[in-house]
Amino acid sequence: MKKIEHIGIAVKDLDVSCGLYEKLLGIPCYKKEEVVSEGVNTAFFKTGENKIELLGATSESSPIARFLEKKGEGIHHIAFEVDNIELEMKRLKLEGFVLLNEQPKQGADNKLVCFVHPKGTNGVLVELCQEVK
Amino acid sequence: MKKIEHIGIAVKDLDVSCGLYEKLLGIPCYKKEEVVSEGVNTAFFKTGENKIELLGATSESSPIARFLEKKGEGIHHIAFEVDNIELEMKRLKLEGFVLLNEQPKQGADNKLVCFVHPKGTNGVLVELCQEVK
Repeated sequence: MKKIEHIGIAVKDLDVSCGLYEKLLGIPCYKKEEVVSEGVNTAFFKTGENKIELLGATSESSPIARFLEKKGEGIHHIAFEVDNIELEMKRLKLEGFVLLNEQPKQGADNKLVCFVHPKGTNGVLVELCQEVK
Repeated sequence: MKKIEHIGIAVKDLDVSCGLYEKLLGIPCYKKEEVVSEGVNTAFFKTGENKIELLGATSESSPIARFLEKKGEGIHHIAFEVDNIELEMKRLKLEGFVLLNEQPKQGADNKLVCFVHPKGTNGVLVELCQEVK
């Protein structure tokens, strides 16, 4: 894994939280994007070489809606940038980690993504992401 | 705020989790340090310009012990590097954020730190940290 690409934060009201994080970080949101397949709206902030990704649910069946119901607002996942997501998925499987998707899938921000089961990573939902060229 | 300095992850058994994160990240832990005043043991990993800080409790009254009891293992806080922690604390107070300590205090890794109340930041415990020169 090369570096932390972004940290995902689940929020109830994306517009309200967007204003809040602009005040907190002292910088403007630079991009909003809907990921229809995941039922989420996203808002991005750039801080150093990382991004903060606010995540709001667009439907009740969205993973973010389920997270908010179970745990409330807060940090949802850490995403690590990788050069070759399939190789990294293979490496992690061999190390005994459980992947939540067997094939890379399309994520926000022009990325192929895969999630690692948080039961094997001390409760932390880890995302691998590879930029689509 | 300049950049994300580290992400703190609360774990039950620091040695076990240290081995787990070495496998997950594919890199060794480069430092372990006890912060006696906070009742925590820490283990650090370097990933890009950020660090991952695993946090274990050394006593039952440690904030990490209380976090583990209440929420279980998982991401505990995000720390942002700042140049001047007192100026940043003042700025955040004027923006309406609530600080958990009125004066900067000594943290791990040679830092002065201050925490922002998670109720005002969508459930995310935010740490400001300034390197002590």
